[in-house]
Amino acid sequence: MSERFFLSSAACAGRAVLEGDEARHLVRVLRGKVGDMVRVFDGSGIEWPARVVTIGRDEVTLELGEPTAVAVATTLPLTLAVALPKGERQKWLIEKLTELGVARLVPLVTLRGVAEATPAAIERLRRGVLEACKQSGRNTLMGIGEPRSIAELLRERPDAARMLVADPGAPLLEAAELQPDATAVIALVGPEGGFAAEELAVLEAAGVVRVGLGPHILRVETAAIALAARLT
Amino acid sequence: MSERFFLSSAACAGRAVLEGDEARHLVRVLRGKVGDMVRVFDGSGIEWPARVVTIGRDEVTLELGEPTAVAVATTLPLTLAVALPKGERQKWLIEKLTELGVARLVPLVTLRGVAEATPAAIERLRRGVLEACKQSGRNTLMGIGEPRSIAELLRERPDAARMLVADPGAPLLEAAELQPDATAVIALVGPEGGFAAEELAVLEAAGVVRVGLGPHILRVETAAIALAARLT
Repeated sequence: MSERFFLSSAACAGRAVLEGDEARHLVRVLRGKVGDMVRVFDGSGIEWPARVVTIGRDEVTLELGEPTAVAVATTLPLTLAVALPKGERQKWLIEKLTELGVARLVPLVTLRGVAEATPAAIERLRRGVLEACKQSGRNTLMGIGEPRSIAELLRERPDAARMLVADPGAPLLEAAELQPDATAVIALVGPEGGFAAEELAVLEAAGVVRVGLGPHILRVETAAIALAARLT
Repeated sequence: MSERFFLSSAACAGRAVLEGDEARHLVRVLRGKVGDMVRVFDGSGIEWPARVVTIGRDEVTLELGEPTAVAVATTLPLTLAVALPKGERQKWLIEKLTELGVARLVPLVTLRGVAEATPAAIERLRRGVLEACKQSGRNTLMGIGEPRSIAELLRERPDAARMLVADPGAPLLEAAELQPDATAVIALVGPEGGFAAEELAVLEAAGVVRVGLGPHILRVETAAIALAARLT
């Protein structure tokens, strides 16, 4: 049985218990039996081979083998703060960022922004996320944050979050530019007309790293999608 | 006038002629006049400042200034062979791949493809490239190749080109997976329904490297755009 099961409770003395949907899936859908070998993981990056020891009504007891090294998520949780483009481009932005696994999108309020993140717009974005999740098999919704200005984002930034800003003139993004001790990345994408001088000054004063995305002038949604593809 | 115009005929003795849509756009839409300064590019990577010298019925003569240095491509030339999606998604694909600096797009003919690359479709793709070039400041046109099957691509592959195929189940793409001695990369993206078993067998037999793009099921154009963002 090559299926992987999620352990929601801790292992103890080499044993662990599958509960709820996971147990029902193993027993009722896959017709698992005592003695069957499966693989389990607990979301922390470790995976075990496991043998079915007992089967109860809504739980399955497993005997765990040696934990195997599992590729830990290779990337950081990514928040994109984007000066929303208009109309169809906004819809595309949501669809692509959801597919690519971005954790959270924050509408970025800028001086030259062209689309306002009204409550109705936010609601539309959330519906777009749900549609894209269903389509792409993604099981965690991409969060849609409340609209934020640069100053607000800086004020609310968690200590260990790395902050980047897409800048047409800057050097290409290298993975090494992400601090190894960062626990999250917040990447900003400005409006079509670019950030205003005072906005750039605030970003620079805060030490936000400027990253380029190649030699051409990218549309807002292209820059956001390219950042997502490179950072997720 | 900050608008950029495409030169479809060669410059001669410091002069060049804008024709057709480009000339009409300059004269009728933008109300260009003799003496106006514009910028022109010929798709080869060079850009000139230019002064309007004469305005005819459907053509404009320009006097060219000094050609300006153009950013040389920093990465491997990338060809994407994509099973074209339909309608709007096709238009988006072209716009984004052009912005991101993909060298060439080849419509990939597959068993489960949904859109045929008719001569009219190819012509529409080429117009999309030109529009995106003008918009994004790109000076070399993205090439649109003739439709090709997997077998044809393999047969025509240059010796030093590295060939990849997007595969939902494969490990994430690492830059290191590109042979350091490769002079070009050809990346394949299959149709929404995936490649057929016989197509996968041909790819495997040819040693084409499978690369993943994260845990979710990506739409055709998302996979192509993500590959472009990672490889250009």
